[in-house]
Amino acid sequence: MVEYYQEISGFFVLRPLTMHIWGTIRKWFTSHIEEMGVEETSFPIFLSSKSLEKEKDHVEGFAPELAWVTKAGDKDLEVPVAIRPTSEAVMYPYYSKWIRSHRDLPLRLNQWNSVVRWEAKQTTPFLRTREFLWQEGHTAHLTEEMAGKEVLEILELYAGVYEQLLAVPVVRGHKTENEKFAGGYYTTTVEGYIPSNGRGIQGATSHCLGQNFSKMFDITVEDPYNKGTHRHVWQNSWGLSTRVIGVMVMVHGDDKGLVLPPRVAKIQAIIVPVGINKSTTPEARKKHESDIEDIRANLKKAGVRCEVDFRDGYTPAWKFNDWELKGVPLRIEFGPKDAEAQVISYARRDTGFKDKIALFHVAEKVPELLETIQSDMYAKAEKSFTEHRLQINEWEKVIPALDNRNVCLIPFCLGMKCEDRIKELTTRAEDTSDVPENQKLPAMGMKSLCIPFDQPEGIVAGETECLNPECKEKAQKWVMFGRSY
Amino acid sequence: MVEYYQEISGFFVLRPLTMHIWGTIRKWFTSHIEEMGVEETSFPIFLSSKSLEKEKDHVEGFAPELAWVTKAGDKDLEVPVAIRPTSEAVMYPYYSKWIRSHRDLPLRLNQWNSVVRWEAKQTTPFLRTREFLWQEGHTAHLTEEMAGKEVLEILELYAGVYEQLLAVPVVRGHKTENEKFAGGYYTTTVEGYIPSNGRGIQGATSHCLGQNFSKMFDITVEDPYNKGTHRHVWQNSWGLSTRVIGVMVMVHGDDKGLVLPPRVAKIQAIIVPVGINKSTTPEARKKHESDIEDIRANLKKAGVRCEVDFRDGYTPAWKFNDWELKGVPLRIEFGPKDAEAQVISYARRDTGFKDKIALFHVAEKVPELLETIQSDMYAKAEKSFTEHRLQINEWEKVIPALDNRNVCLIPFCLGMKCEDRIKELTTRAEDTSDVPENQKLPAMGMKSLCIPFDQPEGIVAGETECLNPECKEKAQKWVMFGRSY
Repeated sequence: MVEYYQEISGFFVLRPLTMHIWGTIRKWFTSHIEEMGVEETSFPIFLSSKSLEKEKDHVEGFAPELAWVTKAGDKDLEVPVAIRPTSEAVMYPYYSKWIRSHRDLPLRLNQWNSVVRWEAKQTTPFLRTREFLWQEGHTAHLTEEMAGKEVLEILELYAGVYEQLLAVPVVRGHKTENEKFAGGYYTTTVEGYIPSNGRGIQGATSHCLGQNFSKMFDITVEDPYNKGTHRHVWQNSWGLSTRVIGVMVMVHGDDKGLVLPPRVAKIQAIIVPVGINKSTTPEARKKHESDIEDIRANLKKAGVRCEVDFRDGYTPAWKFNDWELKGVPLRIEFGPKDAEAQVISYARRDTGFKDKIALFHVAEKVPELLETIQSDMYAKAEKSFTEHRLQINEWEKVIPALDNRNVCLIPFCLGMKCEDRIKELTTRAEDTSDVPENQKLPAMGMKSLCIPFDQPEGIVAGETECLNPECKEKAQKWVMFGRSY
Repeated sequence: MVEYYQEISGFFVLRPLTMHIWGTIRKWFTSHIEEMGVEETSFPIFLSSKSLEKEKDHVEGFAPELAWVTKAGDKDLEVPVAIRPTSEAVMYPYYSKWIRSHRDLPLRLNQWNSVVRWEAKQTTPFLRTREFLWQEGHTAHLTEEMAGKEVLEILELYAGVYEQLLAVPVVRGHKTENEKFAGGYYTTTVEGYIPSNGRGIQGATSHCLGQNFSKMFDITVEDPYNKGTHRHVWQNSWGLSTRVIGVMVMVHGDDKGLVLPPRVAKIQAIIVPVGINKSTTPEARKKHESDIEDIRANLKKAGVRCEVDFRDGYTPAWKFNDWELKGVPLRIEFGPKDAEAQVISYARRDTGFKDKIALFHVAEKVPELLETIQSDMYAKAEKSFTEHRLQINEWEKVIPALDNRNVCLIPFCLGMKCEDRIKELTTRAEDTSDVPENQKLPAMGMKSLCIPFDQPEGIVAGETECLNPECKEKAQKWVMFGRSY
């Protein structure tokens, strides 16, 4: 799926398998935001240092990661320019220029591009890379209500990318003050769960920026409800990056390699010819190949992305392994015995389940089977997330829960310092040298993942206490905490 | 369509009108190259100085335009990195790694991205910008013949973008040695013509790189026809950039502004309500609006991208101008009189022609009309290009032809020095201060645009002389020369 870029660390080549998935997501998401009236745009890749100064609070977080161009050819630039880590400072001066009247609202622009954040931390394919692909939407509205409605509509699309395309369940919620977007008003998020290590992972975020940026960049309209006065517009920004692919890989992958959900797999079914050997006559071989071509053509017509592995010099067993490694959802085997019985044999990548389908029904049954694999993969991941999302009322149960690969829903006061303290209290300090290497869990403390929209019962206002034993405050909400990425 | 980026000169914001066109081109081109088996990929944005050294000849041309990142945050990078001006040096080390056997061929990868070339010359929207969007295809083949076949298939797709989508006629041909891609084997091109100033303009190029890069980057396979030996692969690269949109704007635009071909216009038809004034009763106004909504819905169902201009406070005449400026192909007017007669009134942007269509036939006639506009726009541009592509046999006629806004087909020896000399000989040196400003033609000399595939008769091998009066060589081909961008 990716190749490490040997020239410069922290960069990766995204290969066709990956780009097919990203292309599928892009198409799906684009069709939905177009319906909402969002328009496509393309702003320059560079920021000047001048515009950066306008939004100091926001930029502070990005400053150590900015890549600075200081030379063109062998000439020094008079004013160095930075590659965008995100485009607020690039775009909003134009919002100020374009938005004159409330009739110019809503202004809803989106762009698909790559951004550069020169991370100092260890990079990982998809999850933390110095350049990544994403879409960034930036919109302006007349009222908080209109902005807020869109924030949730977009969040639901992000959930749809995970749930409908990638077969990955997510929990929708708000970020706490500690975890929200720097300079924003509030942040909504979809959060995933990685079964193999029990960590939570942020999926994608949709932010309401409030009027913070419109005040910095002077984006105002005449107030239609209060003639003669001006109001600052309400803004949102929202982004989905190639990180989604990393989440998908980790949620579904197993010991044999990748497991791809059929809806995004570049190859949905691979046909491996079997039962052909040195004693097969040329005629029989030819007949066999032509039968297989018929099956492929039939599947292609039925809308299945299907290939045949005719490679010479490899055994079927070797090919099986190779395609399992690559995560192809369905392996179809076809040999002389299958031909005689007028069936294909298949093996599912997700469960290993094997069965046969009558040739006559292939065009109808294989697409059905692919949809079954898709929904089974989702159901399995959903079951795992549900079982490992523990509602916890006693502090003592927190660390054992984390060690058993759970995330925790706890009553929480929402205090910023309390959240920091919870992280410290759950960071393992003791020596773990006697724990076998393969069972060693990360020593990291837990942080808040989100305040789920969907709140369990059990918190009594003014009575239920924050779970942090050192905290004197009352709990406001059930908040999902976990070790995370 | 674009906005100058005030922060940094030479950069532009591409607005939704532009991005709709680019998106349409991208979709069309992608569907065709997918059928050919080209796969999507995404390589990093940066080049290290090390990989640049590998392909010095090729890079020399780009060196003065490379944007160098020397700092991340406030730390100097140990090794500066350059933003790609094109991706040969980024990609080909991986081709060397991935291509092991002739079974790995053809390898055909494409990416849509932006590249940075820090031009010192004056920049112009679309035509010369320091960052532009493009696709770059890079493929590897076993034989020259296979590579050559693809070069032409891609060129034909580029011609299709111009002719079928943008209604811009192009001439297909080879570039001369002077004008071919640095480091390549040969370059094919589609060349356009700008009626307003008579200049030629390069449309898009499809290059056969030969084995030059595979030798530099050591991309070899075992020769299947000569066991035990290795051969260097044959490579192509081909690119189409947002320049195409600039060509389209210049070919079709007129004194009133943009004229967009219907197939790529974001808004194909704009409905402007007319005949409503202060004396209109609220009931009549409501009825009128609801009639218009019906027309819009009807057109939308028929696949027409249609909007209504309900803006308050502007006269119909003002709105007419505004939409003409924006190039919307079809203006529909609808007022109480039209409602009574059960018609819509329309005006074509390209010709100004006005007529009426019965309401009953709108869903059928408007799409037809849009296709007529598309083909009429193409025919008009085609006629202009044909009339201004003069076949010239006498040197004395060259400069008058250029001054009369023509490009010239001349018998040419194909010599590199002769081509340079032709440019000098056609560069106007004399004082033009007495020519009125609006009639002043550029003093630039003509350069070769292409060697058209489609060669007129009239060159007798070993007899016909090169048109350059100073040249002693015989003519090899009819070559299209012109003042150009």
